[in-house]
Amino acid sequence: MSLNSIGRDIPDSLVGSRPLYQGPWARTPEGLRHAPPLGSIRPGDSKIIPSLREAIAASGLRDGMTVSFHHHLRNGDHVLNMVMEVIAGMGIRDLTVAPSSLFPVHGPLVDHIRKGVVRGLQTNYALGPVAEAVSRGELPTPMILRTHGGRVRAIEAGELAIDVAFIAAPAADPYGNINGVYGPSACGSLGYAAADAQHARFVVAVTDNLMPYPLRPVSIPQTRVDAVVVVDKLGEPKDIVSGSTRITRDPVGLLIARSAAEVIDGAGLIKEGMSFQTGAGGTSLAVAAFVRRYMEERKITASFGMGGTTGYFVQMLRDGLLRSLLDTQCFDLEAVESLRDDPRHVEVDCGYYANPWNKGAVVNLLDTVVLGATEIDTDFNVNVVSSSDGIIMGGSGGHADTAAGARLALIVTTTRRTRLPIIRDRVTTVTTPGETVDVVVTETGVAVNPRRADLADRLRERGLPVVSIEDMKKQIQDLTGKPSPAAVTDRVVALVEYRDGSLLDVVYQVKQD
Amino acid sequence: MSLNSIGRDIPDSLVGSRPLYQGPWARTPEGLRHAPPLGSIRPGDSKIIPSLREAIAASGLRDGMTVSFHHHLRNGDHVLNMVMEVIAGMGIRDLTVAPSSLFPVHGPLVDHIRKGVVRGLQTNYALGPVAEAVSRGELPTPMILRTHGGRVRAIEAGELAIDVAFIAAPAADPYGNINGVYGPSACGSLGYAAADAQHARFVVAVTDNLMPYPLRPVSIPQTRVDAVVVVDKLGEPKDIVSGSTRITRDPVGLLIARSAAEVIDGAGLIKEGMSFQTGAGGTSLAVAAFVRRYMEERKITASFGMGGTTGYFVQMLRDGLLRSLLDTQCFDLEAVESLRDDPRHVEVDCGYYANPWNKGAVVNLLDTVVLGATEIDTDFNVNVVSSSDGIIMGGSGGHADTAAGARLALIVTTTRRTRLPIIRDRVTTVTTPGETVDVVVTETGVAVNPRRADLADRLRERGLPVVSIEDMKKQIQDLTGKPSPAAVTDRVVALVEYRDGSLLDVVYQVKQD
Repeated sequence: MSLNSIGRDIPDSLVGSRPLYQGPWARTPEGLRHAPPLGSIRPGDSKIIPSLREAIAASGLRDGMTVSFHHHLRNGDHVLNMVMEVIAGMGIRDLTVAPSSLFPVHGPLVDHIRKGVVRGLQTNYALGPVAEAVSRGELPTPMILRTHGGRVRAIEAGELAIDVAFIAAPAADPYGNINGVYGPSACGSLGYAAADAQHARFVVAVTDNLMPYPLRPVSIPQTRVDAVVVVDKLGEPKDIVSGSTRITRDPVGLLIARSAAEVIDGAGLIKEGMSFQTGAGGTSLAVAAFVRRYMEERKITASFGMGGTTGYFVQMLRDGLLRSLLDTQCFDLEAVESLRDDPRHVEVDCGYYANPWNKGAVVNLLDTVVLGATEIDTDFNVNVVSSSDGIIMGGSGGHADTAAGARLALIVTTTRRTRLPIIRDRVTTVTTPGETVDVVVTETGVAVNPRRADLADRLRERGLPVVSIEDMKKQIQDLTGKPSPAAVTDRVVALVEYRDGSLLDVVYQVKQD
Repeated sequence: MSLNSIGRDIPDSLVGSRPLYQGPWARTPEGLRHAPPLGSIRPGDSKIIPSLREAIAASGLRDGMTVSFHHHLRNGDHVLNMVMEVIAGMGIRDLTVAPSSLFPVHGPLVDHIRKGVVRGLQTNYALGPVAEAVSRGELPTPMILRTHGGRVRAIEAGELAIDVAFIAAPAADPYGNINGVYGPSACGSLGYAAADAQHARFVVAVTDNLMPYPLRPVSIPQTRVDAVVVVDKLGEPKDIVSGSTRITRDPVGLLIARSAAEVIDGAGLIKEGMSFQTGAGGTSLAVAAFVRRYMEERKITASFGMGGTTGYFVQMLRDGLLRSLLDTQCFDLEAVESLRDDPRHVEVDCGYYANPWNKGAVVNLLDTVVLGATEIDTDFNVNVVSSSDGIIMGGSGGHADTAAGARLALIVTTTRRTRLPIIRDRVTTVTTPGETVDVVVTETGVAVNPRRADLADRLRERGLPVVSIEDMKKQIQDLTGKPSPAAVTDRVVALVEYRDGSLLDVVYQVKQD
């Protein structure tokens, strides 16, 4: 076993040529950006291909290759399942599948794993039957879990070399221009698909809404798309975008949110030109609401809000509290409509958002990010990958990216979920290294990372209930008891890559009854 | 000497590993897209560098490297001269300078050539003192002349490897997002700079208008920009964009334009969903005006107009005659304002416009392009590079790109300029191969390329004065006499690359009195 700088053991057999995590900026990029083959399409050539099967045949997909997907259709996505069913029917095997996220709807992948169609998975988030099958050891190779920025980094650095990218295209024209803002499957931003389109050897647009040339706006350009396939339906609209996302009404959630907003203000980050990102959860939105109150009182305008975007942020944009909204993914219909209609609401690609190895991602300029946690340890390491019984049920997404970039990375959470304590000596899996986490806000107090002693003093002066994370842990574990470690075997089922590609942790196969 | 497929002799010493031109689609791309080095910018790093000198030092520019510029500031550009003066002052020598075009304002480059600061030039268009100096043999290596699409192809294929790209940025934010639509030097689209920013090893934004983060719209993204330098003034606004460009009032020009519009209609290309591109010259605009008349009579809407864009096209967009306007470069203020304010007016990069080696450029979808000519030969080869006395005074720009892509490539010109005949047995330099030119319209008739016998019949049926190009030539040369070939030496001063990188022709040093 090899120990990385946050004390996680990585089996030597897995390390190979991979670097161990040594700190958020320990790795310096070397080498060249990945280069796909040049291609050419002549006047008169058509990109419309009548079926997925013919498009896959045209792509030259063969055993052992890598296919990619993006997750903007979320749990309403039919495209991954449609494509994989056709691939399986063509007898192609041993594929690596690299979607930006996996949702419960992607359950049919489990069967493709069992039948040998799929041999590897690489993703940024996995929830549902596929994640559970991986946790049970059904995938023959360890799944690679990345961050949103890390996935783009891996693509641009050639570590995730995509043979064929399938782009779910809510709107496409016959020459392969794509956007996400029109049609029955409109999902808004297509920010996670951009790197796939730029770097895959072959790119297939799958659409249920062929529009006249030239489509505008252009999220994915014709210059990178080889084939356009029209299908009946990309997905289930109600599961692609939700209705309004709402602020929590839970009193504990509101208490935590109010404290979090005070922490942000105490850090001096509610000021003209500020920037912030919150998640789409009810407590995160409540933090935004409290921050908004400060902004209104002081007539402050933020330079930008970053997201996964919700109607709440859209309203702040409309009300003049945000100068702009940068968006990799829309969570609700208001966000889709705003992205379509308001030029201040800007689609950005995921590399622009979070890739640590380009000439500067948005996360570097975040003042504040508000994040959740499944577990936190006393080194401030955060787990959002696995449940406390060791089953994969999430992933970093932008968690580790924004924590590394933001001046203030704030975790908001209750101290326990059902009977389990959130604060522990050791998290089941590290998703986000503690050295990039500044403050944990729970209903029992505010724990400041000792690396931020300056901040602790300022928050104390403001009268916030600053406690040590050890005391926070003790207080909750006095109620819940000490949690047992997850019952796992010694077989690794997933690697957790930090955003720079170094090995942050591994996930072990769970013991089955 | 080696003969290419259009009968132009290329000295063997120049051929080397370069392919000879063998037809517009004879070359198939091989190999990978060019890959610049990966990089990284950390939270807290600033990209603002206080002076050009420090930015150049930071770029690592050394003797023998390649620097690039774009030409959207046209004859009002100060940036190329400013940068080259600083480079010369730093003692750096033997550079290759690769601007997308060179204008009379760039005269100071001649001195840098004479002093050994500049050893090579690669561009798509050259007019003025630099072009004349090259014609006189002052540059130690042959200048490479490309098409707009060919330049992007050369960048993406790694043939034009740019060490440091300088982007004239009418608007930039401190993190390097750039657009061309705001500020005292607003020029509209930055379409020619995109490939430089994507592929250069180091990218410097030079701006006279630093705006708050995040700038929008984003034409060049922060993710590809290393440094931002603020200067007093990018250029001379009156020479960056003109006032309104106007339709010719010359009766001969109007006659030609009317015939051209009839040819377009005769070819069946004035129809719902049509697309077209014309230049910004008075006769070209007159063609657009006659085409417009047909469209209005028949209630036709074009899918897109492509350009270099003028107020005339903007008005067609506003009047509902164009569904969209695709734009690599704005020629007047109306175009700049329209690009800024009208979402149907879309900035596209030059690779999207014309690169033959991506997955499909706009030129492939053009129905009609209306182009000019300095000379035309009886094989329909067109020269827009050199005057009939052999001096470089232009370049292809998008000429050869659009001719290769469009279903109808139409040349409009008078048959003589001063006393010189435009139609000749042999053009001084071939810019656009005749096999991609369909029709030549002059005041004396309509000459149809014999490859398009179908079209000749249709135009004759319509009563258009279809003549052979030989007869057209004879008629004019009966008046002007047979032109003498240019008085040139046997030293090659420029290579004319076809858009696919093959050698189309060479330009020889002129004899000096």
